[in-house]
Amino acid sequence: MGPGISVDGARLRADLEALGRIGAVPGGGVSRTSFSPADAQARDWYRARCAEAGLTVQVDGIGNMFVSRPDESPAGDALPAVWSGSHLDSVPNGGRFDGALGAVAALECVRRLHEERIVLRRPVRAVVYSDEEGNYSHLFGSSALVRGFSAAQLQELTGRDGDRFADTFAAAGWDLARATRTRVDPGTVYATVELHIEQGPQLERLGHQIGIVTAIVGLGGGTVTFRGRPDHAGTTPMTMRKDALAGASALIVQFPRIARSVSDRAVLTAGIISVEPGGSNVVPGTAYLTVDFRDLQRANVDRLADTIAAAAQAVATEQGLEVDVEFEPTIPPSQLDDRIQQIIGAAAAARGLAASALPSGAGHDSQNLAALAPTGMIFVPSAGGRSHCPEEHTDWQDVENGANVLLDTVITLADA
Amino acid sequence: MGPGISVDGARLRADLEALGRIGAVPGGGVSRTSFSPADAQARDWYRARCAEAGLTVQVDGIGNMFVSRPDESPAGDALPAVWSGSHLDSVPNGGRFDGALGAVAALECVRRLHEERIVLRRPVRAVVYSDEEGNYSHLFGSSALVRGFSAAQLQELTGRDGDRFADTFAAAGWDLARATRTRVDPGTVYATVELHIEQGPQLERLGHQIGIVTAIVGLGGGTVTFRGRPDHAGTTPMTMRKDALAGASALIVQFPRIARSVSDRAVLTAGIISVEPGGSNVVPGTAYLTVDFRDLQRANVDRLADTIAAAAQAVATEQGLEVDVEFEPTIPPSQLDDRIQQIIGAAAAARGLAASALPSGAGHDSQNLAALAPTGMIFVPSAGGRSHCPEEHTDWQDVENGANVLLDTVITLADA
Repeated sequence: MGPGISVDGARLRADLEALGRIGAVPGGGVSRTSFSPADAQARDWYRARCAEAGLTVQVDGIGNMFVSRPDESPAGDALPAVWSGSHLDSVPNGGRFDGALGAVAALECVRRLHEERIVLRRPVRAVVYSDEEGNYSHLFGSSALVRGFSAAQLQELTGRDGDRFADTFAAAGWDLARATRTRVDPGTVYATVELHIEQGPQLERLGHQIGIVTAIVGLGGGTVTFRGRPDHAGTTPMTMRKDALAGASALIVQFPRIARSVSDRAVLTAGIISVEPGGSNVVPGTAYLTVDFRDLQRANVDRLADTIAAAAQAVATEQGLEVDVEFEPTIPPSQLDDRIQQIIGAAAAARGLAASALPSGAGHDSQNLAALAPTGMIFVPSAGGRSHCPEEHTDWQDVENGANVLLDTVITLADA
Repeated sequence: MGPGISVDGARLRADLEALGRIGAVPGGGVSRTSFSPADAQARDWYRARCAEAGLTVQVDGIGNMFVSRPDESPAGDALPAVWSGSHLDSVPNGGRFDGALGAVAALECVRRLHEERIVLRRPVRAVVYSDEEGNYSHLFGSSALVRGFSAAQLQELTGRDGDRFADTFAAAGWDLARATRTRVDPGTVYATVELHIEQGPQLERLGHQIGIVTAIVGLGGGTVTFRGRPDHAGTTPMTMRKDALAGASALIVQFPRIARSVSDRAVLTAGIISVEPGGSNVVPGTAYLTVDFRDLQRANVDRLADTIAAAAQAVATEQGLEVDVEFEPTIPPSQLDDRIQQIIGAAAAARGLAASALPSGAGHDSQNLAALAPTGMIFVPSAGGRSHCPEEHTDWQDVENGANVLLDTVITLADA
């Protein structure tokens, strides 16, 4: 294997910059939540780029987009395809690289193969997955490909803003009846590979250009609600209070210790907190917090859930509070394919790039796709480890390096 | 001194129940924030009761109402008057007794004196103070009587809902130009006395019917804002985080210890907390909390302020955060008048009621009025110590007992 061809770094950058102007927010970020007008505009922009390049786009019922070369035979008589892609949607006030990089780089790979008229054994598809950021459901588009959704399930989905998925989806011009028919036959997919920004600080800290993702963390989480008694902040002695926020705080301060007690990879976050009644002179009667916890081992995710619940119960007992712990079903960790990791490592080495193997702490569509076909992921450094914010940035040389490693990996897989 | 006359307990209860239907909310409470339509309706209801009883109502520029007997000479040739009153406004979703009890009981006292044609040396006024709950300014109406507000100060006031006082006041039919002319001549007031619910658990715990208020706590407070860095909850190792909520929690868990370190009366409350960006999978970059702290000694209030600020700074330093502590100027504690305390105690004893001296942990108009004339306060028990909530309740016998002690106290003061 060797880098016979390379991506057009200037074109890739221009594409990412153009895409970053769609749904732009102050500070250099974007807000392109799924099925919003900005998301629709980004899809239109992507399709126009495909059309310019002479590529064909097919869209499934949930909005996943599949880009092919017209000279490749569609699935049927062809061998199973190699997929590469990511997503165009963003979190509110998110960054320009998360998802966008992998979606545009996959297009660039197919575009270069088509420009160079390179014939490979297997078809190559650039894929854009719908709603990766889970406005309506965690890794929505890839879940639809792997597991599918029933009409009843779709009817129950609501978005971050409280909108019903069915309403927003229909208003954006999509057909809900088609959205239940999205599962793909695993036999049609040979392998998948996704280029993504690391969203963490490890590659930058090591000074490495390429991350070879070994696994994607398992994820648990939900809410913890402490209930005490709202009392007057002036008239209720400290010893007679049932302060729900005191309970929540006593739990949160234990998070670093709880994480360490499980593994050195475990992370544990309270990202949202609110209290009621919420007056400056009223002792909080209710405190509600979200908890997000992750680890690379399924057993550790479960241990985190158990340890947090036990700690919350101990705080409640000690402080005379009630507590409800409601965690969603655990999303298990995904191991990525060993052979694809080796191919990525060889591609990086051939291009003289320093690479290190590391797990992904963030969720990605690849963790769904790993159930469909052997799957790999390539990371490039995130400046300052920042992501999901306007400051999210990846050096343009790192963008080009990552796309070249992706191209090499796709070629190797498609010629296998 | 002896109980020559008594209040009409049934009428007092009927009045409080009628008033409790104005601005009623589910669960038995009321929402009558100052200058709201419900507040205006309560004022109209109160004026109608005064008119029925043949009493005269005068209203000052900020909405304080003064109820007189028409056969008493207005201030001028008369001796300085005895004032008794409280407030009709409530916190949002508050109780039916806080303020309402003292306002209606004062009316009942004047009404009974008028009905019985009892001639006392000094005029007696029932007074309703505007906006005690501080929708626009802490103890707004009584502050206007004692210190007054300039037009510029009034223009700057905003309410809980972000509305400008000047707009709401004008929309409710009041004249802003008159609102700057509210200060009263201390020479016209001989003494003031206020009946109020305790809003705390002490009288109920002791099984006593009457509280003789010795002092009103001093109050400090404001906001503490921790600033860290918003990071991805999955990709950022625990040891590389700058989690603003972790900082806020580490401060809040110290509150009981900080209170104990200052005095056994000190209280310290975080009643509001919020974080940004506020996503379940984002490490909080900013955490904002309110702090309310009180003590009976001015020096202790200041020590609380200093200790909290130092603790917040220590947490920030330890966790690599920035912190801003912004406290309002301290409202000093008020000592209530010794002689009036003795008169209240004697009145309770003469009626066979168990009384205990206790401080007020809540703020009251009386703490302003104490700067105008010798001032006393009478407390009656709050069921379960609850207040500022729909569950706020005082037994009807306790209501009648308190009003009778108020009547006796007013008579003694007015005949002195």
